[in-house]
Amino acid sequence: MTQGDYRAIAHEKRLQRSQKIPTAWRLDDDKRQESINPLDVPITCGILNDTEIDITSKYDATSLLMGIKIGTWSVEQVTTAFCKRAAIAHQMVNCLTEIFFDEAIERARQLDKQRQEFVGGKTLPPLFGLPISIKDTFQIQGHDTSTGLACYVNAPAKEHSAIAAMLLDLGAVLYCKTNVPQTVMTGDSDNNVFGRTLNPRNASMTAGGSTGGEGALLALRGSVLGVGTDIGGSIRVPSICNGIYGMKPSAGVIPHGGTRELTVPGTDGVRSSVGPMATTFRDCALFLKSIMQADTWKYDSNVISLPWRDLTKPSKRLRIGLVEDDDFYTPVPPVRRGLKKAVDKLQQSNAVEIVPLTLPQGNGWYDDLLSYYTLMGNEYYLEQLNRTGEPLVPSVKALGLLSGQKTTLQGFFDLNVRRAEVASTYRRFFRDNNLDAILMPPAPHTALPLDTWTTVTSTGLWNYLDYPAVVVPVDVVTDSDAIDDASNAKYGHQDAGLYKLYTGPELYEGLPIAVQVVGYRHQDEALVATAGILDSIINGE
Amino acid sequence: MTQGDYRAIAHEKRLQRSQKIPTAWRLDDDKRQESINPLDVPITCGILNDTEIDITSKYDATSLLMGIKIGTWSVEQVTTAFCKRAAIAHQMVNCLTEIFFDEAIERARQLDKQRQEFVGGKTLPPLFGLPISIKDTFQIQGHDTSTGLACYVNAPAKEHSAIAAMLLDLGAVLYCKTNVPQTVMTGDSDNNVFGRTLNPRNASMTAGGSTGGEGALLALRGSVLGVGTDIGGSIRVPSICNGIYGMKPSAGVIPHGGTRELTVPGTDGVRSSVGPMATTFRDCALFLKSIMQADTWKYDSNVISLPWRDLTKPSKRLRIGLVEDDDFYTPVPPVRRGLKKAVDKLQQSNAVEIVPLTLPQGNGWYDDLLSYYTLMGNEYYLEQLNRTGEPLVPSVKALGLLSGQKTTLQGFFDLNVRRAEVASTYRRFFRDNNLDAILMPPAPHTALPLDTWTTVTSTGLWNYLDYPAVVVPVDVVTDSDAIDDASNAKYGHQDAGLYKLYTGPELYEGLPIAVQVVGYRHQDEALVATAGILDSIINGE
Repeated sequence: MTQGDYRAIAHEKRLQRSQKIPTAWRLDDDKRQESINPLDVPITCGILNDTEIDITSKYDATSLLMGIKIGTWSVEQVTTAFCKRAAIAHQMVNCLTEIFFDEAIERARQLDKQRQEFVGGKTLPPLFGLPISIKDTFQIQGHDTSTGLACYVNAPAKEHSAIAAMLLDLGAVLYCKTNVPQTVMTGDSDNNVFGRTLNPRNASMTAGGSTGGEGALLALRGSVLGVGTDIGGSIRVPSICNGIYGMKPSAGVIPHGGTRELTVPGTDGVRSSVGPMATTFRDCALFLKSIMQADTWKYDSNVISLPWRDLTKPSKRLRIGLVEDDDFYTPVPPVRRGLKKAVDKLQQSNAVEIVPLTLPQGNGWYDDLLSYYTLMGNEYYLEQLNRTGEPLVPSVKALGLLSGQKTTLQGFFDLNVRRAEVASTYRRFFRDNNLDAILMPPAPHTALPLDTWTTVTSTGLWNYLDYPAVVVPVDVVTDSDAIDDASNAKYGHQDAGLYKLYTGPELYEGLPIAVQVVGYRHQDEALVATAGILDSIINGE
Repeated sequence: MTQGDYRAIAHEKRLQRSQKIPTAWRLDDDKRQESINPLDVPITCGILNDTEIDITSKYDATSLLMGIKIGTWSVEQVTTAFCKRAAIAHQMVNCLTEIFFDEAIERARQLDKQRQEFVGGKTLPPLFGLPISIKDTFQIQGHDTSTGLACYVNAPAKEHSAIAAMLLDLGAVLYCKTNVPQTVMTGDSDNNVFGRTLNPRNASMTAGGSTGGEGALLALRGSVLGVGTDIGGSIRVPSICNGIYGMKPSAGVIPHGGTRELTVPGTDGVRSSVGPMATTFRDCALFLKSIMQADTWKYDSNVISLPWRDLTKPSKRLRIGLVEDDDFYTPVPPVRRGLKKAVDKLQQSNAVEIVPLTLPQGNGWYDDLLSYYTLMGNEYYLEQLNRTGEPLVPSVKALGLLSGQKTTLQGFFDLNVRRAEVASTYRRFFRDNNLDAILMPPAPHTALPLDTWTTVTSTGLWNYLDYPAVVVPVDVVTDSDAIDDASNAKYGHQDAGLYKLYTGPELYEGLPIAVQVVGYRHQDEALVATAGILDSIINGE
């Protein structure tokens, strides 16, 4: 079946998409009026009323749920507010792919009617009435799962992905899907169908990828809780770029069934992990707890159904391994400052013991991770693109993903053997140092100029090893973050090249700085507890 | 490095092994005196004193631990008793590979000395002083892990396997390793190094495999708790053949690290599962609880560390799906009678609701399981055998394992795709029927004549899907178990051939009959609770 040229498909799809935004919510030039801070446009544009500004600006998901529960707002009010703000955000930064505000508001009305069924509102499901945005890769019945590829446009999903079904069963309201990169593997959410998602803070910088539409939407508070996937950093990279919280759980803990993958079906080795992105850490915890408490196995045959145990607060001091860099790249000055700021606060606390460490040698793990990404080479990727004649977008070209060599079954097993050795080394590292978590930069840099984010050495290690990891924002680049000499880059030529991308505060001021908190494999709940304590110390009053 | 001929290696190894049995424990002909029941030989042979007969005959592991705890016996007494009885069992049925009674008794003495350190014996580790036997495939420092292959003889392990290290840390005493088939993949524990393990009840019948040495040792009560592995039935088949309890947990729940595998290193797809074999079901539960309560992740990088939750007894009736056969083979008369006996008892109980079901179609799952077993073909197996010129033993020839075709990476992924479909079907089957467990025969037959057990359709499905499963003995073949017409075999030619192997009670009388209880993936603790209730109804007074 020939599908026609990608340009025609994309043109038609974008038209359909823009028609999903009601006229009253259109961000015309007169409403756009440049604010000093672009993040304020949703507030100043006049499309939201005061209550809607309140709902979308002042609360996180946990508070919104409470407000709905006690009747401060109806579900319809909350849903409408976020639909409107998402519409505004989208018109600013092109972050949405599928828009179904009408369905969402209809569902919200139904929920408002149904709430009396839950014993007068006392036993509401844990996510009752909460609008949740979701990455384009997750199937939602009746809507495309194009992942930005023209060949998958106009093929509405016949059933929900596991996580979409769960969220709905838990009471959530789904209202939009968010943009991704071509191939869903780069740090720039740019594709031929939907175009590029911009960083709300700075249009010359990436919004991150692959869950970049989600990141930008959250930065503009068109959502307070979103769902992403992460196989190398795809939740964490846009969390860094947009100054939000993001958690990559251990693979399989949150159901992944019914997600479109662009690799050869049946591919195994390193698995994509589903996780939350949010404006507060407790909302990440809310997401994990809500899902893990429910029967994930009923929705997905491939889950690791770790029970949520309501762990009590640790009575002892947390032991946190402090890792200054990933042994590949030297963090640039603002990232070093952000880490130091976090560590200084933690060291002033009685709750935490900081143990400076360096990561163990990983036996070529990064090359092996890249090999896992391209086990079957590039043919399947190219075949999907060629169906509609799509060219590669710049970030895919820059990444070099599609030049990865395919391997054999023996080669695959060899990768497994080497990884088992690295896993053993890291298990001993965690155990022998008696660590509750590792604290390190999630990347050696902040958001980068468009199409230059090409390595994931600080995030990808934890996919390779399947350890859960959280990104916690700590600060933004200020005019004091001067460049220093590239000779400070400790790891040679490539390091120096990346280091030099940081050209000082002129271009970077206001971009978020984050730290990464890493837990042990399958100890996701323990990491939630630990990261919650660290965040409250780092970002608490 | 040439290693010499397998015959010389085996001869020397067997000599070494027999020297590990103290003279006083030798089962000379005068002590062997044929009892009416061969299972009584350990009692009548005069090698055990009355206390040792008591210790090894009357208690399960749970009781023994209590007796040690309250001081009824010293650890040395218990250990010595089981060493002696294991020595007798071995001389009867050739069930041991590595014998280290001296080390075990020395450790027992140390534990007796140390018990005061545990707050006067009040906080003893959960397996304190319990002798545990273990399959040859698990590394134990200082002893071979030959798995019956000559090429691995005289290569003592440099470190403990994860499960051995855990058991020791939990207070257990390891005293012997047990026999396996060549390739560790057949239903007959026979190899060129150690020879064949016999079925204690009937030497013309298999003792089962691959954990057959363990099964025979337990039948003779040379152990009350053993550790096996199961990738298609290797715990459950010898449990059937020897009338004991055996549990195959979900893969990874019990640490598998440091186990010798004879497949190409790094092989994935269907994973071998570590589990207990015991004389009571509560001892299987004891094993699972003791391991799952401990920090499995500290011992093995590849575990699924599901926490033990001390689930409370279900308040509702259990819903048990009754499956009469595996859709490949028709159970022979005594197996049908055994299942009916169990079901009749369960139906008389208020605690259980029986729901007759047939298994969903599995889309060629059995062929695919066999393909998973031979992903890389036979070369690696043959290479290991060829190092010392070993021929195939009859059961390996009969199995046809080594004629399996190798596949490609694409072929491997295709297997994964098909399995995901079957897994989805079975998930819905479990969910939509609201099942607590499935009850079905663990095989269409009892123990079979030597070298004729060649299919694992009733057990292997649960490895393919990674569901936990328990074998519960229910009866033995009696003289009333007449043959019936092979035309009762419902599934065609192959079924009729297997069906005809049951030739009536003349040859089979006294052989155990068992049922299988299957739980959902990763719900291992729930299965333990369910199977415990079913066993207490089926086998309770």
